[in-house]
Amino acid sequence: MENPTANKPQDTEKMVVRGLEGVVAAETRISYVDGAQGQLYYQGYNIHQLAERVSYDEVVHLLWNGDLPTRKQLNELRAQLAAEMKLPEPVYKWIKSVPRSTPPITVLRTATSMLGIFDPEADEMTPEANLRKALRLVAKVPCIVATLHSFRHGREPGKPDPAKGLAHNFIHIFHGGDLDREMETAVDLLFVLHADHGMNASTFTARVISSTLADMYGAVSGAIASLKGPLHGGANQKVMEMIEDIEHPGYVDLYIEGLMNDKQRIMGFGHRVYRTEDPRGVHLKRWSKKLCARDEFCQLYEISKLIEKKVKEAKGINPNVDFYSATVQHMLGFTKIYFPSVFACGRVSGWTAHILEQLADNRLIRPTSKYLGEYGRTFLPLGKREIPKAKPAKKKTH
Amino acid sequence: MENPTANKPQDTEKMVVRGLEGVVAAETRISYVDGAQGQLYYQGYNIHQLAERVSYDEVVHLLWNGDLPTRKQLNELRAQLAAEMKLPEPVYKWIKSVPRSTPPITVLRTATSMLGIFDPEADEMTPEANLRKALRLVAKVPCIVATLHSFRHGREPGKPDPAKGLAHNFIHIFHGGDLDREMETAVDLLFVLHADHGMNASTFTARVISSTLADMYGAVSGAIASLKGPLHGGANQKVMEMIEDIEHPGYVDLYIEGLMNDKQRIMGFGHRVYRTEDPRGVHLKRWSKKLCARDEFCQLYEISKLIEKKVKEAKGINPNVDFYSATVQHMLGFTKIYFPSVFACGRVSGWTAHILEQLADNRLIRPTSKYLGEYGRTFLPLGKREIPKAKPAKKKTH
Repeated sequence: MENPTANKPQDTEKMVVRGLEGVVAAETRISYVDGAQGQLYYQGYNIHQLAERVSYDEVVHLLWNGDLPTRKQLNELRAQLAAEMKLPEPVYKWIKSVPRSTPPITVLRTATSMLGIFDPEADEMTPEANLRKALRLVAKVPCIVATLHSFRHGREPGKPDPAKGLAHNFIHIFHGGDLDREMETAVDLLFVLHADHGMNASTFTARVISSTLADMYGAVSGAIASLKGPLHGGANQKVMEMIEDIEHPGYVDLYIEGLMNDKQRIMGFGHRVYRTEDPRGVHLKRWSKKLCARDEFCQLYEISKLIEKKVKEAKGINPNVDFYSATVQHMLGFTKIYFPSVFACGRVSGWTAHILEQLADNRLIRPTSKYLGEYGRTFLPLGKREIPKAKPAKKKTH
Repeated sequence: MENPTANKPQDTEKMVVRGLEGVVAAETRISYVDGAQGQLYYQGYNIHQLAERVSYDEVVHLLWNGDLPTRKQLNELRAQLAAEMKLPEPVYKWIKSVPRSTPPITVLRTATSMLGIFDPEADEMTPEANLRKALRLVAKVPCIVATLHSFRHGREPGKPDPAKGLAHNFIHIFHGGDLDREMETAVDLLFVLHADHGMNASTFTARVISSTLADMYGAVSGAIASLKGPLHGGANQKVMEMIEDIEHPGYVDLYIEGLMNDKQRIMGFGHRVYRTEDPRGVHLKRWSKKLCARDEFCQLYEISKLIEKKVKEAKGINPNVDFYSATVQHMLGFTKIYFPSVFACGRVSGWTAHILEQLADNRLIRPTSKYLGEYGRTFLPLGKREIPKAKPAKKKTH
């Protein structure tokens, strides 16, 4: 232990990859984001083939098993999901007790972690037990969000119908009633389009946590924590705040110019992977138009379209999934503080599929870091230390 | 949208880095793991210079601010930490309500997420607010663990002393009384040695979550979720299970040979980065010996030493931090189900330091994945699908 720094370590030749951009962190069969051509595939199916043609439950089956379900399989899955929507009594009571001002995504993050306490299989790591937990999470995560909304509107949450799909049952509990056929289709579409998207930050979080062989409730709770960030699933809420702030189509140009002059980020635009339009955005835009058209006083689609035009002209970037998802969610009766948690209700199918895939061929995800600090500073005991004089500003390497 | 797969994407030339081994995910000044020479530095100080010479609170100050505190700074920090140990009443009550069978690390993960509900600054992202939240987390995380233990032993948790260090106050609440000077030194040392360790899986989790600009309670809760895994912070508990299972020094050889014959992992050995001995292990081994020597009937150190010898001979690998940490924790009166959560009590200082560093120069951490699946499968409507025949086994690429 004498003179431990005789040989100074060399940590200078390493190259840092900021944000791990372009680094391939895992192999997957679940989804593929073709950024160059603006295409998205779920287990080999182009998203344009699935959108509006399949229910969310079919996508859940597809992501987990690699194939779309037969009618019999779908019916079984729906009955299982409806049965698993039931929340443990202490979680249910806890949701009721949460202060009203709490963001729903924070409630969801905490309640999902709490679910692990009441699942006797939480730490059982067999493939069969993991698939059962995936089913529970895909059913219970939307139910937590819907239950919270129900309580906050003074209602006891309704019961799911085992013959109906998860998106329907979610809405039924959330709103305390059903929507018309067109709106129900839109909810299913919303969940389908948010179900998976390659190695995004929350999915990556779920895989990193799972790679330590930690339990699935922790991995999904961590993914929800990650999704909350405004640079990820928190963006749709910020988009809606912007649209509401603009108020009228006539103010769009001035508002966006103001943001750009202040060098502020315009939420809902640009993407790490897509170099062209986001294929999910294409569908959401059409539905934003369709749903807004149902209300003759609604100008939200009009405002959105003008924002898109302005940003495209000025910065050459395209709207991403969050941009038109905001107005679609709004027209479906979700208030904007719920947007990130509704995103989570769909994405949990992708997270669980990735966790199952990670665990099937696991290796601990543990990168390294490049050290920029000193080595072997001289230790002074407590009585001899002085507040150091202001150091010259550290040289930034970026 | 017609024929979306006309141009098949090319995703074949990408190289996956399994487990991100050797990939540099971030630059840091907080700590450096010199794997080749078996050295660890905190902000430039070799760990051998700090161990047994500084209290944990001094390391907290060091990790956050880059310098060891003066006596005045240390006293201020201790008073602040003691004041911040107080838990919000609903969290306190919730901890009391948790079923006794719940692993403490699961309680800690959930309660840490819950703390975010009761901090009005949770979503305030200024550097000053983030530093205040770091302080709260470093104080409250150990208090959650100690409070849980206190409740489970039928005691109301005690009060922290603002003149004493965090490790002392933790023990005081955990055990409902004080330890002697030697054992208190060991607790401080335990926290100091677990405080930070480069880009390990839980620290990396915290940085990934924070990089979306999500709140710090979510990032630390996600880190705890990750720490729970047996390939990370859950390992110390597994080590203790093994030692207890062996029972007597005379059974070590047979037991370890049995594990090796069954191709089972021997917990507490080997490390992704260290190619030599783990410098933390050196200190923990000495303390394991010292604390076991206080009890003439204790054979835990003896058993541990024999395991180390056997594994080194057979596999040429060294014990890591978890190996001797197990017996040290045991001799300090922690039962093994608490080990991962005690690890978290020290590591939270490193997590918060890394989060502050990440946020000071943020870029979204979003790697990519290599897609192994198909493209443009033909969609069949629900009524026309059949259960596919068993596919030939997928060719593994590793």
